[in-house]
Amino acid sequence: MVVNANWKIGSFSRFLQRRTHSTIKDWPNLPNCSNPSYRQIPGQHLHRLQWPSPPRNILLVKKHHDERVRASVVEFARHVNQAYKDLNILLEPSVIDDFKNDLPFAFSPPPHSAVSEYNRIVDAVVTFGGDGTVLHASSLFSKCRMPPVLSFSLGTLGFLLPFTHHIRDFCDYKLVFDELVTGKVRLLERTRLQCAAFNVDGTKLSRGDFSIDITNVMNEVNLHRGREPHLTNLKISIDNRFLTETMADGLIISTPTGSTAYSISAGGPIIHPCVSTILLTPICPASLSFRPLVLPESSTIQLQISENSRGSAEVVLDGRATCILNKGEYMEIGRGDSIWCVSRGEEWADDLRGLLKFNMGFVERGTRSGWE
Amino acid sequence: MVVNANWKIGSFSRFLQRRTHSTIKDWPNLPNCSNPSYRQIPGQHLHRLQWPSPPRNILLVKKHHDERVRASVVEFARHVNQAYKDLNILLEPSVIDDFKNDLPFAFSPPPHSAVSEYNRIVDAVVTFGGDGTVLHASSLFSKCRMPPVLSFSLGTLGFLLPFTHHIRDFCDYKLVFDELVTGKVRLLERTRLQCAAFNVDGTKLSRGDFSIDITNVMNEVNLHRGREPHLTNLKISIDNRFLTETMADGLIISTPTGSTAYSISAGGPIIHPCVSTILLTPICPASLSFRPLVLPESSTIQLQISENSRGSAEVVLDGRATCILNKGEYMEIGRGDSIWCVSRGEEWADDLRGLLKFNMGFVERGTRSGWE
Amino acid sequence: MVVNANWKIGSFSRFLQRRTHSTIKDWPNLPNCSNPSYRQIPGQHLHRLQWPSPPRNILLVKKHHDERVRASVVEFARHVNQAYKDLNILLEPSVIDDFKNDLPFAFSPPPHSAVSEYNRIVDAVVTFGGDGTVLHASSLFSKCRMPPVLSFSLGTLGFLLPFTHHIRDFCDYKLVFDELVTGKVRLLERTRLQCAAFNVDGTKLSRGDFSIDITNVMNEVNLHRGREPHLTNLKISIDNRFLTETMADGLIISTPTGSTAYSISAGGPIIHPCVSTILLTPICPASLSFRPLVLPESSTIQLQISENSRGSAEVVLDGRATCILNKGEYMEIGRGDSIWCVSRGEEWADDLRGLLKFNMGFVERGTRSGWE
Amino acid sequence: MVVNANWKIGSFSRFLQRRTHSTIKDWPNLPNCSNPSYRQIPGQHLHRLQWPSPPRNILLVKKHHDERVRASVVEFARHVNQAYKDLNILLEPSVIDDFKNDLPFAFSPPPHSAVSEYNRIVDAVVTFGGDGTVLHASSLFSKCRMPPVLSFSLGTLGFLLPFTHHIRDFCDYKLVFDELVTGKVRLLERTRLQCAAFNVDGTKLSRGDFSIDITNVMNEVNLHRGREPHLTNLKISIDNRFLTETMADGLIISTPTGSTAYSISAGGPIIHPCVSTILLTPICPASLSFRPLVLPESSTIQLQISENSRGSAEVVLDGRATCILNKGEYMEIGRGDSIWCVSRGEEWADDLRGLLKFNMGFVERGTRSGWE
Repeated sequence: MVVNANWKIGSFSRFLQRRTHSTIKDWPNLPNCSNPSYRQIPGQHLHRLQWPSPPRNILLVKKHHDERVRASVVEFARHVNQAYKDLNILLEPSVIDDFKNDLPFAFSPPPHSAVSEYNRIVDAVVTFGGDGTVLHASSLFSKCRMPPVLSFSLGTLGFLLPFTHHIRDFCDYKLVFDELVTGKVRLLERTRLQCAAFNVDGTKLSRGDFSIDITNVMNEVNLHRGREPHLTNLKISIDNRFLTETMADGLIISTPTGSTAYSISAGGPIIHPCVSTILLTPICPASLSFRPLVLPESSTIQLQISENSRGSAEVVLDGRATCILNKGEYMEIGRGDSIWCVSRGEEWADDLRGLLKFNMGFVERGTRSGWE
Repeated sequence: MVVNANWKIGSFSRFLQRRTHSTIKDWPNLPNCSNPSYRQIPGQHLHRLQWPSPPRNILLVKKHHDERVRASVVEFARHVNQAYKDLNILLEPSVIDDFKNDLPFAFSPPPHSAVSEYNRIVDAVVTFGGDGTVLHASSLFSKCRMPPVLSFSLGTLGFLLPFTHHIRDFCDYKLVFDELVTGKVRLLERTRLQCAAFNVDGTKLSRGDFSIDITNVMNEVNLHRGREPHLTNLKISIDNRFLTETMADGLIISTPTGSTAYSISAGGPIIHPCVSTILLTPICPASLSFRPLVLPESSTIQLQISENSRGSAEVVLDGRATCILNKGEYMEIGRGDSIWCVSRGEEWADDLRGLLKFNMGFVERGTRSGWE
Repeated sequence: MVVNANWKIGSFSRFLQRRTHSTIKDWPNLPNCSNPSYRQIPGQHLHRLQWPSPPRNILLVKKHHDERVRASVVEFARHVNQAYKDLNILLEPSVIDDFKNDLPFAFSPPPHSAVSEYNRIVDAVVTFGGDGTVLHASSLFSKCRMPPVLSFSLGTLGFLLPFTHHIRDFCDYKLVFDELVTGKVRLLERTRLQCAAFNVDGTKLSRGDFSIDITNVMNEVNLHRGREPHLTNLKISIDNRFLTETMADGLIISTPTGSTAYSISAGGPIIHPCVSTILLTPICPASLSFRPLVLPESSTIQLQISENSRGSAEVVLDGRATCILNKGEYMEIGRGDSIWCVSRGEEWADDLRGLLKFNMGFVERGTRSGWE
Repeated sequence: MVVNANWKIGSFSRFLQRRTHSTIKDWPNLPNCSNPSYRQIPGQHLHRLQWPSPPRNILLVKKHHDERVRASVVEFARHVNQAYKDLNILLEPSVIDDFKNDLPFAFSPPPHSAVSEYNRIVDAVVTFGGDGTVLHASSLFSKCRMPPVLSFSLGTLGFLLPFTHHIRDFCDYKLVFDELVTGKVRLLERTRLQCAAFNVDGTKLSRGDFSIDITNVMNEVNLHRGREPHLTNLKISIDNRFLTETMADGLIISTPTGSTAYSISAGGPIIHPCVSTILLTPICPASLSFRPLVLPESSTIQLQISENSRGSAEVVLDGRATCILNKGEYMEIGRGDSIWCVSRGEEWADDLRGLLKFNMGFVERGTRSGWE
């Protein structure tokens, strides 16, 4: 059992305890997490966090099936285990067995269904992989508050990947992790959207395994016709006031973070993550005049499958198909719990150019300047 | 001279004074205005205003060359003069002579150059005309704080026109004006942008009559090639951090209010006036990948005519050409003073459909549904 | 058996024969059709047709489940049966029973699988319904030459619907049908695309029921991810020359006719049906710079599911899902057989405004003109 | 005087004659040109040309103010003068003096005003510079048929630049020029548009120096508000049939060649140069639903400044401002004379990627694929 409440690097007794008690890997014995508070740095978009008590439990989330990622996780976890004796390391249930030999000190967290336990114990999340890995980490906390996230890529690029973890480049990751633990990092608040689905009569919808309750998404809620050949008729209301009805392949309700994901492919604008807003972008609407809408973050958006729709629509949350909505059923979407992401600073402009190939100019041809 | 500080309807002595002293029309004698404070109505986008002392001086702004508008102004001014004895009515210098006979009690305000006097005396602005009239009213206060605005159209439609003033329909205008004077109206905050121009060396630019100093715009700042056949090369920085360089016909930096003006013609998204943001939309860029950008309202945007630009650019503020910027010269644009507009409530969705023909659906043709 | 080769209205012997021999409804006994030739009317987009011998067999195609349509078909068929004794009327196998009592003289055509028999016997097609009904008629001749088409709507609007058939308005339909039979109509050539699917090794693909062979489409070939959450990676070549590779929801290869169907929802331009071209429009591409391409009609386009694609793609022909293509499999698309549609003349511009709500102007707001 | 009608390389007497008679530089003495015929190469987009008699007079057109270009022209002209004794070399009047010493054998062509003389004498044009130089060459023949064009760039890239001329790389330019002279080259037909302007009463407009008569353009006709703050109201008709009226910054009527020039910046599609079509693209229209139109090449388009327009419009032909059109005045635009450009073959796809940065994919981020 974890009893040592002192939080200092190199606590010998703590080390012994972990090494000698295999029962310690039992996640129910993990101490409660420390829920940090955040405050904006004056004159900046970024925030600092403050731990009310030292963090104790770090969840590592990794991309599947990637040997380089695996080696990084081992390297990272061993460093943390060595350097921070009071920190417990958790891995996801699906991968814990794979690390049994390399990381014998790691805890398996609760099964994905035990949402409240994640909420109770995880102080911070460290991800190893691409943007998809960060989205997956978000989905583990889709029903609750999300702890701060430190994301490492291994060379892959991404909007959510401010740091790169190379196995031979210790200093960087050690430094930034230490800053996270000691409250010195700067964090970017990325708002999430929360959504719920309802039956025609306004009661909560609960469908098969897909009882989606209130769920937080990091990128977008997407209602899409899927394989239906028919377009979906959707009625859009904002704060229970009818806005318009559309026949379309789908509709994307997106966070600023998600504005550069599916929405941008559907023609949406690029929104800086610090703008407080909800973006509504249609997918292939049967209209020449459905321009994307940038709505107040305080809005609640209702999307209803119209009674005269010939097709149903699939609810896709951050890229994962979740359930089908039929005629008259509807979703409500509004601002959810934020994710606080450790940030290097102003990487946004670089990402636009590097990741989106934003504003790639034509090779100058002079065709409009008369004669050259 | 205006001496009566008591603010009640029907003050007899005040009435006599006005009628008998022609010197009273001398604007320097007008009392100082009362600068209202605003607070958001809980759970709404709208605000209430609070007058620290009763308003005294009302500026009427009207569309030119429209006989119906003229008649409405006369009707309105006579009502106010009758019903609110302590309220002084001002007309613009350019029209005061035209109303000499009909509204002998009206004051001429300072010339447009005397910005600080506008700031000192005007408690509220009432406009009669289209959106362009509201923009003109805003331009009278482009160098300073703007008093609250009550806008009447005479049948024309507009995004900035919540109220219609018909000469036979007294009740409505009387009621809403009384609510303005007594602090009962609801107001929509429309942020403005402020901008200034600079020489290559960073000193303030002052060009001919167009010393533009810090100027507030309600819709947009537009840098445009004008009649230059050459595209303009513009360097865009955000908070002094280089973002991109573009060769384009122009660039629009727009408020949410302006998102449905020039920006929407250039392909920009529709932004709800309550979203705190600055929109950057390119005009005919020499790039396939310059998508509009939705930036934090706290951003300061630098637009510089590149050294390698073959053309110059014209600065157009809310549709008025102001001056030419040459190579190396630049503008800075950031959040300015807001305009508080008396609002009926949620007219935004109606305006999208009614004014923009937003999401006009195709007539259902069934071509994608196989066989019907 | 039909033996009477004389083609005149009111042939008595022919009439008797039909009325007395029930075996006459056996479609194999129908005479061969007369394959018309077409020539452009000088100075016009439209064509005239010339029947080498009088037409004999008219196929009526109707929208399902619409009582008004049913009544129109009965009315029309009775008129033709009365007025043109040598014309045989065919109905689709799926509806023939429904008309047994009302149209005892009607022939059932071959089952849909007997493509070559359709080709052999049908002189002209008359449709009753919406654009989808015309698409369905086209699909009956997807493997072969298509006879000329006369399309009636019953009040519904459509790009493919130049004529309206109202039950009380006899003159019009009688006149235009007579002009068709006597070669006086004007026709619009609408090109179709033909496509085939191939295995990785270049052999023809034959999958389940969906052996698609060479198939003609009137609107578009659409490769789409369907319900796959993953985008599809598609390699695009033109005339076997690599053009680009895209990760997208899908790709639309469209005729000019189809430019106002799915393609326009995906952002494609509007193409006049008389332009000889093939249009390529991406659906939600993972690129800011994939603009629609207008290609020569003589092009052959290869679309291949990339080897590194994580998803497969569904082939959707004129809105009907047909089969799934997997990694390495590909389609070839090029110009196919045209459809000649009886036309009123220049209905195109009217349809743009009426059906697409093309260029619905803003209500004039004056916001860009300074002050009004 | 040029008397030698035999066309063979190395004719000695011809050489002497040129060297000894300075009067030979008098362009009126140049023989008539040989107007080639063109025929399509079966199965290809490209054409071959056939000279009825050997070409005699080659016009060199160069970019201004570029030393490398100048050196290339000298090199090229000397080679031609040496190798093709019967070919006369012409330079433009504006540059002839600059080459007096280096190319004493060169002829000055007629002044730009003597259009009919250009038409009479020039067999082929060789350009040295960018796309703008080719446009300029086209403008020399804007009132008449255009001779075939061979275009060399000097490293700059362009859609109209299939060949690069480096001073040290003799073989290539010698080979392709010889193939031009001997009729072995392949040529791409690029259609031009012809346009004329009319007064309200339908008479030809002739304004100051800008009597524009019928003029051919290679890229586009552009009607633009220029510096007018007001949008221009334009009435669009096709073949004298009203299509729509638009309030916009301008309208572009473009060739397929021009589809990748101004039109693409305004949002137009990319059109292969071999598609027979005219493209209409609006510039910043006051409408959400004005999609670009791809029209039959046989169309005649009328663009009229509406009577209710508050602004006039500037006519800009291939980037050169030409004249102002006022209320009621209009233009007619239709297919003009083609330009036949010597082509390497299928450079189009390469140019899309290389010049336009077409379909630059996002760096794969995995955000839509769940978890990676």
